[in-house]
Amino acid sequence: MTPRSREDAAALDALDPLAGFRDRFVVADGPHDQPELLYLDGNSLGRLPAATAAAVDALVREQWGGGLVRSWHDWIEWPTRLGDRLAADVLGARPGEVVVADSTSVNLYKLAAAALDAVPAEEPRRRAVVVDAGDFPTDRYVVQGLAAERGLELRALAPDLDAGPTAEALRAALDGEVALAVLSVVNYRSGALLDVAEVTALAAAAGVRVLWDVSHAAGVVPLALHPSGAELAVGCTYKYLNGGPGAPAFLYVRQELQPLLRQPIWGWFGQRDQFGMGDAYEPADGVERFCVGTPPILSTAALEPAVALVAEAGVDRLRRKSVALCDLAVELADAWLTPLGFRLASPRDAARRGGHVSLAHPDAWRICRALADAGVVADYRVPDRLRLGPSPLYTRFVDVWDAADRLRRLVVAGEHERLPRERPRVT
Amino acid sequence: MTPRSREDAAALDALDPLAGFRDRFVVADGPHDQPELLYLDGNSLGRLPAATAAAVDALVREQWGGGLVRSWHDWIEWPTRLGDRLAADVLGARPGEVVVADSTSVNLYKLAAAALDAVPAEEPRRRAVVVDAGDFPTDRYVVQGLAAERGLELRALAPDLDAGPTAEALRAALDGEVALAVLSVVNYRSGALLDVAEVTALAAAAGVRVLWDVSHAAGVVPLALHPSGAELAVGCTYKYLNGGPGAPAFLYVRQELQPLLRQPIWGWFGQRDQFGMGDAYEPADGVERFCVGTPPILSTAALEPAVALVAEAGVDRLRRKSVALCDLAVELADAWLTPLGFRLASPRDAARRGGHVSLAHPDAWRICRALADAGVVADYRVPDRLRLGPSPLYTRFVDVWDAADRLRRLVVAGEHERLPRERPRVT
Repeated sequence: MTPRSREDAAALDALDPLAGFRDRFVVADGPHDQPELLYLDGNSLGRLPAATAAAVDALVREQWGGGLVRSWHDWIEWPTRLGDRLAADVLGARPGEVVVADSTSVNLYKLAAAALDAVPAEEPRRRAVVVDAGDFPTDRYVVQGLAAERGLELRALAPDLDAGPTAEALRAALDGEVALAVLSVVNYRSGALLDVAEVTALAAAAGVRVLWDVSHAAGVVPLALHPSGAELAVGCTYKYLNGGPGAPAFLYVRQELQPLLRQPIWGWFGQRDQFGMGDAYEPADGVERFCVGTPPILSTAALEPAVALVAEAGVDRLRRKSVALCDLAVELADAWLTPLGFRLASPRDAARRGGHVSLAHPDAWRICRALADAGVVADYRVPDRLRLGPSPLYTRFVDVWDAADRLRRLVVAGEHERLPRERPRVT
Repeated sequence: MTPRSREDAAALDALDPLAGFRDRFVVADGPHDQPELLYLDGNSLGRLPAATAAAVDALVREQWGGGLVRSWHDWIEWPTRLGDRLAADVLGARPGEVVVADSTSVNLYKLAAAALDAVPAEEPRRRAVVVDAGDFPTDRYVVQGLAAERGLELRALAPDLDAGPTAEALRAALDGEVALAVLSVVNYRSGALLDVAEVTALAAAAGVRVLWDVSHAAGVVPLALHPSGAELAVGCTYKYLNGGPGAPAFLYVRQELQPLLRQPIWGWFGQRDQFGMGDAYEPADGVERFCVGTPPILSTAALEPAVALVAEAGVDRLRRKSVALCDLAVELADAWLTPLGFRLASPRDAARRGGHVSLAHPDAWRICRALADAGVVADYRVPDRLRLGPSPLYTRFVDVWDAADRLRRLVVAGEHERLPRERPRVT
């Protein structure tokens, strides 16, 4: 099949209603003797919004340097204020259902533990926890730890590294013995997309509570957590939300559920009257009860302007562009890369795919390294996957074209074969 | 008693070998029609080191904006590299015994849970956990949560809000039924200082493990965790270490103990082969096993230049100056404030006191507010305490003099009596 031409890709950029957002990011010029850097790893770490550097600098110099401890009068509201913003603009949740706190891993632990502790005593048969064996490591590990500690059965869905769990597999696994399922909306490796409403409904039919990880969906796939019936979710903010390296994570707890859940880490930021400093821990009424310790304010400061950009663009528009970018990547993979030994390892149907495209190749990690040498930042995931994540806020259609073009050329030239075979510590 | 004069205080500043460090901090000029701001709350949030703003800006613009995801090759080492730095320069620990991670509250939870899980099966009588009822809220609450979850006896030492627990009280409480004691080296309210080596020895004699919170000691009181026999510790970095609001916390686990402990939150940053992303969680060999999720890099970037300043000054010299500053505060309180209804609520003996001085007064919180209006930032703690924290890296002796002078004048004038009585949410 002959793909569209580079001119076609440029024409898509010319028509792109979001094209102007690229200028709102820092896109540094590389050395003049190097090809332009093409960044297709926004699904791992999003680019720096231009407004962020100024916002962080103002926070540091004015609020910390000048305001000193008095600025806590403002800062203490940030986790819920940013949570409400994420709820409205990214997650499809109600005010008071989302808070920014801790890391995704710690939030997974808190909500999974809270959900397990809330299993009614009249349901003693619910002693299993379900995970997807193809899910992101931390999701699986956190649940392994909780299952080991509580003597629960760990029920792992057979991994489908290309397509994620089917509704049938979920329906079979989620039965009257299951207390909780932890699932990702978008799979980190394949990009496979689950339908939150559909899975929530089939889980609810079996009386199973689902804890969603929306890390790879937030900011690129429209989410409607509350209308979908979702009860629990966590996610990170440094991928399509561009919050910066290790930006604080968020958690969502459906409002009706909040009074029924208590999380295990009783810290002073979850206390009802924090500065009363009373004898007994008494959790706050709202979503603040899922907070623990003092939030990292510098990292939180970077989040606000980043989320504002996503809100301004709108997740629906971002999704449309993301689908078009990924469709172009699939088209070029079919035309150029499949003949070179690659296999599409993501759902072909855009409706079942999140914001990135995964390609399998036996030599994926050396190819990923050689691709970096050719000025294209993508990433490698075990066992043999090259991930391309064209973040729609700042990635152009010609970037996808040029990246695929450099990729096919380096494989044809065998440039990757000159690199050592060992796997790096960080990819 | 007649105190020394302001000229005596100025003379102490002139002789102060650490005086030059004040210029390494951002000390903003306030409005010209206002008195100079006197900051005595460095025990809550330390001032901004001048080098920090530049370091954070470089991190944001160059490492994130330019380096993008590739900078993780460097960032991933930060938690252990900074941990080693804290170990050497602040905590008296060995390389590989300290890591920067999460919040103090989350670290308390991880280490307390790990210690409780490690109680040998042949010691079934150890079903109690000891806390100081006068300790900082989060320390008490985290232990309450763990005790409730595990059905343990919560044994709270009767609070002495002025002096902290005595060795006698600790010896009586730490018996063969105790699995773990959580204690602060310096009490957040009174500043009372425990002797780590003494308490560790008396606890060890009863087979009791101690988890130390060094938040109010780190950077102002010399610590020798390893030589003192300490096994477990946590602490924050935004007080005397000046790491910035919500800067990431640290944890210390004695090397011999590390292989014996497993913490409950099994996240991917604690995994031995993190990017192998294997099926089963297998904790890293070293202190990294106590890590959980992706660390907040912006907040971590602020920590490095701050710790470097403490290291350059040296905690022994900082302690000497801190004692002299606090002795001056006590002297002025005796001379000026006791006659006005204040009572010294900190140990009078500097050897039993950390880096701040607490004064009790029935109207403490209105006085604290009025003091802020007079340009002195101190803080209030329930029930009736005014805390003065003259951080020795940047506080001058004349600052203590002038703050005490403004304090006595406003109380004599009754300025606080014009303010409303309700307690604020944040102080």
